Amino acid sequence: MDGVITLTTDFGAGDAYVAAMKGVILGINPMVTLVDICHNIEPQNIAQAAFVLSTAYPYFPPGPIHLVVVDPGVGSQRRAILLKTPSAYFVAPDNGALSYIIEAGWAQGAGREAGGVSSQARERELGPGFEAIALTNPRFWCATVSATFHGRDIFAPVAAHLSAGVSIHEFGEFIPRLLAFPPPRPQVAADGTIEGHVLHIDSFGNLITDVRAEDLPPGELSIEVKRRRIAGLSPTYAQGGELLALLGSSGNLEVAARNKSAAKLLAAKTGDSVTIRGNP
Amino acid sequence: MDGVITLTTDFGAGDAYVAAMKGVILGINPMVTLVDICHNIEPQNIAQAAFVLSTAYPYFPPGPIHLVVVDPGVGSQRRAILLKTPSAYFVAPDNGALSYIIEAGWAQGAGREAGGVSSQARERELGPGFEAIALTNPRFWCATVSATFHGRDIFAPVAAHLSAGVSIHEFGEFIPRLLAFPPPRPQVAADGTIEGHVLHIDSFGNLITDVRAEDLPPGELSIEVKRRRIAGLSPTYAQGGELLALLGSSGNLEVAARNKSAAKLLAAKTGDSVTIRGNP
Amino acid sequence: MDGVITLTTDFGAGDAYVAAMKGVILGINPMVTLVDICHNIEPQNIAQAAFVLSTAYPYFPPGPIHLVVVDPGVGSQRRAILLKTPSAYFVAPDNGALSYIIEAGWAQGAGREAGGVSSQARERELGPGFEAIALTNPRFWCATVSATFHGRDIFAPVAAHLSAGVSIHEFGEFIPRLLAFPPPRPQVAADGTIEGHVLHIDSFGNLITDVRAEDLPPGELSIEVKRRRIAGLSPTYAQGGELLALLGSSGNLEVAARNKSAAKLLAAKTGDSVTIRGNP
Repeated sequence: MDGVITLTTDFGAGDAYVAAMKGVILGINPMVTLVDICHNIEPQNIAQAAFVLSTAYPYFPPGPIHLVVVDPGVGSQRRAILLKTPSAYFVAPDNGALSYIIEAGWAQGAGREAGGVSSQARERELGPGFEAIALTNPRFWCATVSATFHGRDIFAPVAAHLSAGVSIHEFGEFIPRLLAFPPPRPQVAADGTIEGHVLHIDSFGNLITDVRAEDLPPGELSIEVKRRRIAGLSPTYAQGGELLALLGSSGNLEVAARNKSAAKLLAAKTGDSVTIRGNP
Repeated sequence: MDGVITLTTDFGAGDAYVAAMKGVILGINPMVTLVDICHNIEPQNIAQAAFVLSTAYPYFPPGPIHLVVVDPGVGSQRRAILLKTPSAYFVAPDNGALSYIIEAGWAQGAGREAGGVSSQARERELGPGFEAIALTNPRFWCATVSATFHGRDIFAPVAAHLSAGVSIHEFGEFIPRLLAFPPPRPQVAADGTIEGHVLHIDSFGNLITDVRAEDLPPGELSIEVKRRRIAGLSPTYAQGGELLALLGSSGNLEVAARNKSAAKLLAAKTGDSVTIRGNP
Repeated sequence: MDGVITLTTDFGAGDAYVAAMKGVILGINPMVTLVDICHNIEPQNIAQAAFVLSTAYPYFPPGPIHLVVVDPGVGSQRRAILLKTPSAYFVAPDNGALSYIIEAGWAQGAGREAGGVSSQARERELGPGFEAIALTNPRFWCATVSATFHGRDIFAPVAAHLSAGVSIHEFGEFIPRLLAFPPPRPQVAADGTIEGHVLHIDSFGNLITDVRAEDLPPGELSIEVKRRRIAGLSPTYAQGGELLALLGSSGNLEVAARNKSAAKLLAAKTGDSVTIRGNP
């Protein structure tokens, strides 16, 4: 292995767009290892791309290059950027797709913003050890750049040259801030009631919420979703009633149905409320 | 290439669960070659995972590690296991996902069980040259193990360490039996009529049955499925009527429709009966 | 990297057919890099496979082997072939799946055929620097060849041996012509009106047409599709009205909807007419 490049896009499985990017990369660095993160991000859904990426990148060994191409503003004024963190590189449009990574750059409590449910991205300072570059040097792009597919013509060749050892300052100038949205967080009412939201529905139909382990009060819990009530957390998917709640593999509260899709059972969708109350 | 690890899961294409497993593996053995077998197993469908795996593993060169994560019992008492056969390794939950491999370990006629249509797994002795290990040594797991994603936290790191040369007895203790279900087999009536079943519907809509070439009587055949009758076997998909039967690429009897989906044409589904009669 | 083999098939994501091919390849050349182009070609849709392949192969570095298995005639008299071009190799059934590549072998204007909307394949001479071989030497096939899966039993092992350095004349005899259909081209009426067609609908719902940049008259354009009229070309997906037209990343005219699926918005499908008029 001579480095890893991962790919996250909204290109789906019916076209050769991902393969064109891989062809470009292998033409520049034939020794790189390519790993698909996910190509079934909903078209133009930056928030979903940001979340799905956040569930995978912590599990890679130090030094990978994560390429993210969910890019509704391709060809417009939106910047193309490279973000270096202490453990990885990210190459993406500057549109919020790296929001969770940027937020993770701030130690808990230090510089952390209040979360929100808005997916409106705004300028965000970078945490310690983070550096960002605007990709403005055409020397590392494809010879001709289309107006509609910078994934193939700019992001892929930049990632490949980076994996081949080009130093980050060659790709363009340093920039102090990137666009990010505050990762969704639950609201906590005065009486301690936690109002969370469904962040993502996975392919099992599990409802993954924005409520994290550290948000939960100690003791027994009552979880309410779509007018159904769940008493307490189950340790596993195999234990609990037809409908159950647990802490999933990314540390988020999930609502699941035993050997079924909770999303279908509850007709739930992304954004739905999930209310957690401590034992009265 | 420094070994091959294949992956078979029910994780679908909409999440980053598979990528998280690959990240863990590459962190332990960056030189391994990763090959996806299938990630579109129906959620929790162990029998389907077992069948799909059985159609691919014989085509790999000796020594690969086949990782199977269809694991409805994750976090419960079900064991995590490693199976060594004379030609490959398998890392999976002990839930029947390796049934075809375990059955293939018995020479035909020697120790072979009567097949059945039940997918109820029960304890099964291992054939000659087979060894199984219960994965109980946490030294080869991720530092923290979630209750819900052993694919990432136990199976992936074990497969990676195995590919990197760790000897199998390091992972846990030998166990004599694994859970397996008898691979589905047709019933043969006193008059020679063969009553088979649709095992799997592939993406072309071909109906793949549990009837194998060696089950068929010599001479002309008549195949009946969903009240439609097919006379004889076609040599290829391109020869025969609108609806045809043939011996498919895994040696199983298939019902196909010429340039169409037989499943749609017949409204057929997994488990449907397929009756074969010799020429009267 | 010791060579690249790409794979384009209509096998979908629900089976292990692609993995069986990869197993065969890695058994012959464990050092090869495998890249999936697309496995979601509609079953038996040779024209779609030909188009999708044409959007990716130009982006690979010199020397890859492109394996294409969309093969409704498997087991019949259709030939299995290897095509060598100045920049790549192609291994496929001789059924038109390589039509765009064969056509690209003719310099513009020299030997170029009038395009058409027919997807009827007929014998076609090869351009300068192109060579074709009929795959008739069973020495490079799997030991047993099924009648229904030459992808696994003939095409995959041939591609693997080729990547491992076997010279092309070992695989069979040279043949002068291959089956190809004229890549679809728009009709131009006496008054300059261009009548194009929807070639492909990508996963964003963009309508990719057979009208290329060089077909368009200078000046302002009016594009009509499904009784909707679009004034002029937009430079990017982010600029223009709800419905817009632009030159896409492969140089074809596309009709798109801003952050939506144009295919859904217009209820459009492959083959639909797209009419372009110059400014009156």
